[in-house]
Amino acid sequence: MTSILIKNACLLPIDETMSVVENGWVHVEGDAITAVGAGEPPAVDGAEVIDVGGDVVMPGMVNPHAHLAMALFRGLGEDVDDRLFRYVLPMERKFVTPDMVRVGTLLGALESIEGGVTTIADMYYYETEVGRALAHSGLRGVVGQTIATFDPPDHKTIDQGFALVEELVAEFFGHERIVPSIAPHAPYSTDVEVMARVVGWAHDHPHVPVQLHLAEMDSEMEWCRKHHGLRPVAVVEKAGLLIPGLIAAHCLHIDPFEIERMASAGVGVAHNARSNAKAGRGIAPVEAMRAAGIKVGIATDGPMSGNTLDLFAQFGPVSMFQKILGRSRKPMPAAQVIRMATLEGAQVLGLGDRIGSLEVGKKADLVRIDLSAPRMQPIYDVYATLVFSAMPVDVRDVMVGGRWIMRDRDVKSLERRKILRDAGQIATAFKAEMARIDAAQ
Amino acid sequence: MTSILIKNACLLPIDETMSVVENGWVHVEGDAITAVGAGEPPAVDGAEVIDVGGDVVMPGMVNPHAHLAMALFRGLGEDVDDRLFRYVLPMERKFVTPDMVRVGTLLGALESIEGGVTTIADMYYYETEVGRALAHSGLRGVVGQTIATFDPPDHKTIDQGFALVEELVAEFFGHERIVPSIAPHAPYSTDVEVMARVVGWAHDHPHVPVQLHLAEMDSEMEWCRKHHGLRPVAVVEKAGLLIPGLIAAHCLHIDPFEIERMASAGVGVAHNARSNAKAGRGIAPVEAMRAAGIKVGIATDGPMSGNTLDLFAQFGPVSMFQKILGRSRKPMPAAQVIRMATLEGAQVLGLGDRIGSLEVGKKADLVRIDLSAPRMQPIYDVYATLVFSAMPVDVRDVMVGGRWIMRDRDVKSLERRKILRDAGQIATAFKAEMARIDAAQ
Repeated sequence: MTSILIKNACLLPIDETMSVVENGWVHVEGDAITAVGAGEPPAVDGAEVIDVGGDVVMPGMVNPHAHLAMALFRGLGEDVDDRLFRYVLPMERKFVTPDMVRVGTLLGALESIEGGVTTIADMYYYETEVGRALAHSGLRGVVGQTIATFDPPDHKTIDQGFALVEELVAEFFGHERIVPSIAPHAPYSTDVEVMARVVGWAHDHPHVPVQLHLAEMDSEMEWCRKHHGLRPVAVVEKAGLLIPGLIAAHCLHIDPFEIERMASAGVGVAHNARSNAKAGRGIAPVEAMRAAGIKVGIATDGPMSGNTLDLFAQFGPVSMFQKILGRSRKPMPAAQVIRMATLEGAQVLGLGDRIGSLEVGKKADLVRIDLSAPRMQPIYDVYATLVFSAMPVDVRDVMVGGRWIMRDRDVKSLERRKILRDAGQIATAFKAEMARIDAAQ
Repeated sequence: MTSILIKNACLLPIDETMSVVENGWVHVEGDAITAVGAGEPPAVDGAEVIDVGGDVVMPGMVNPHAHLAMALFRGLGEDVDDRLFRYVLPMERKFVTPDMVRVGTLLGALESIEGGVTTIADMYYYETEVGRALAHSGLRGVVGQTIATFDPPDHKTIDQGFALVEELVAEFFGHERIVPSIAPHAPYSTDVEVMARVVGWAHDHPHVPVQLHLAEMDSEMEWCRKHHGLRPVAVVEKAGLLIPGLIAAHCLHIDPFEIERMASAGVGVAHNARSNAKAGRGIAPVEAMRAAGIKVGIATDGPMSGNTLDLFAQFGPVSMFQKILGRSRKPMPAAQVIRMATLEGAQVLGLGDRIGSLEVGKKADLVRIDLSAPRMQPIYDVYATLVFSAMPVDVRDVMVGGRWIMRDRDVKSLERRKILRDAGQIATAFKAEMARIDAAQ
């Protein structure tokens, strides 16, 4: 069993007070954290000792909502209001195959690791491929097979969608890092009937988390009003899906009453600040949700929407947006942003007892971050530096379950050149299709 | 005279249509651009030929509003609503000396160069030191000596303030890269009398640009209403200071009528998206200002307010905020963000005929950016990649006036280790003072 002692760290354990432990150390044995402390650590026979020279060591970051394979669509049709119907849906129907999902997911996994993310909740098509790619990459994942009524690329009927979920669960149930999940797409793309069927299925599979998009768009508000005379959260509740552990992405259009309903139901929220803002949709009421007791994680959404899969790019927007809403510097302090990016994201995914903090008994998911670049100096508050100045390139090492998957910015688990070559070939086909679509308009 | 031929570039000349020139080249002789083209360049006797292998080559970025020396206050008192009066003003009065300004400016210059910024409009105290530090760093600068009535660190009276301006102008007038400037602080901190005196002085010094903070804060709105029964723009107009070439920073609180007044007066605006948002102040109406014909540049403000001095960190917020205001993906397209960061910023500073685009006859201020990292792949629109995915670390080389000041991320002109050591010493004194202030409260 491997034994690794990391010492001389600026340790951020993510405890109740968000304390900063100068000269801290962590002892990892096998896949778990077995001791944490400050000062000179006790000698441990046979341990590899790593002196990090004052670098930050903190839990690996948790991204609770992404569509990794959409890395292949990154920046496509930027600034075009109708790009969803003009490009994305037709191109997904044409190009989304198990192979495309595998390549896109590997590209997304590479970017995630290089940005210090160690756990990702994904939601896309052919999700078994996503699970395999994440397992191969060394990351931890909650992989959600999408179910929707809009004729998605991998199922024609809802029965077929459930069959894909069953396959996913059969392959990954009990896997050490990959948690299979079921993902009814959104209220408007499943309606109450499918969501109710998911509720029954989830009741019989209590360890399979449910993810969906919720209260994201004006058009969704309009659909829910027209078909049910209700707002989106009420439509989900009508279907019985407002259940403990539900992972709800977005949640922009929610009022104080709905916040109370979600809080008492035990729903978790994946906040996608950049994706929502880039689409001109608005700002989710994160401070109000957290004040009501809802756990809120920081997510990237798919790279088509948010462009990046690292959480650093989200930190500034997450904090600034709440300060704008609150007309003050005080909302969403930097330390709370880091809490959301780690422990709270893990709690949203139902993994709060396994990861998200540096505590004895938890899985050893951690990152080492070098804050020595001039653009971060001086440092008065390490959390402010992480939130407003640090970048993916500052992440040096990444460990998941006691295994280094990146050392000195070299991702050990993935073939970088092959992934980029494969992605480039698919992008060439996408460009040709865009040109064809534009010419036909 | 040096002769440098840069070829095989993804060239962004920043022309009328924001064209992207694949396989472009630029010829630099001495301090200027002497030819630009596409394809294989003609052979030039004696030229150093640099094949950039498809990297982006674009104009150096222009930061039209900063307080570089405040890099030493970066992140100090983050999230504290009254930090200006609790920490900043007392600490500035105690610690701002020519030496502190020199060290802080060098730290800020180092970060700016590493982020691809080649021109900075600064506004602080002991501004002659800023001019010297920028001249030494190889950057281009518009250096504004602050004048204010709140007993700032370097002048007790307005006469003394003007004397500092005269010294600054005497030292730098005619300098090839450093433009001296006069900076009445803001309407509430100069009042109409000082601003009117600046108008007279500026009339006698037509090549010295005027900078001020304008329409930034609720408290400024309140002050203007109370003392003049007017809004900030009207107070500046009353003083006669709404003059062509005025560099107005912030401009959050301006209405359509004021936008028209500023546009017809020929005022330029420095937009500080992150700084304004982090303070909870709101979003400046950038789309409306540009639609009215006002030139708007992208600025960082001081690193105490915005934390960073690179423009990449601003790009996302600049674009997202206008999309939120407009409730659509369309406002502030990526190409326009890059236009603001280069040519339009130069126009705001009155330097639009010298820098900001890659055109024959302009000064050779340019940057080379490597977009090959996985987090930026694939690339469908190079402007979207620059705005939403690129980071300072992707900038490889920086040239100002035909001289490389950074090659392969090595800043040639500055002593990095000495700057960081000096900055660290000052930060230690700041931390002790903060502890003293906190203990005394």
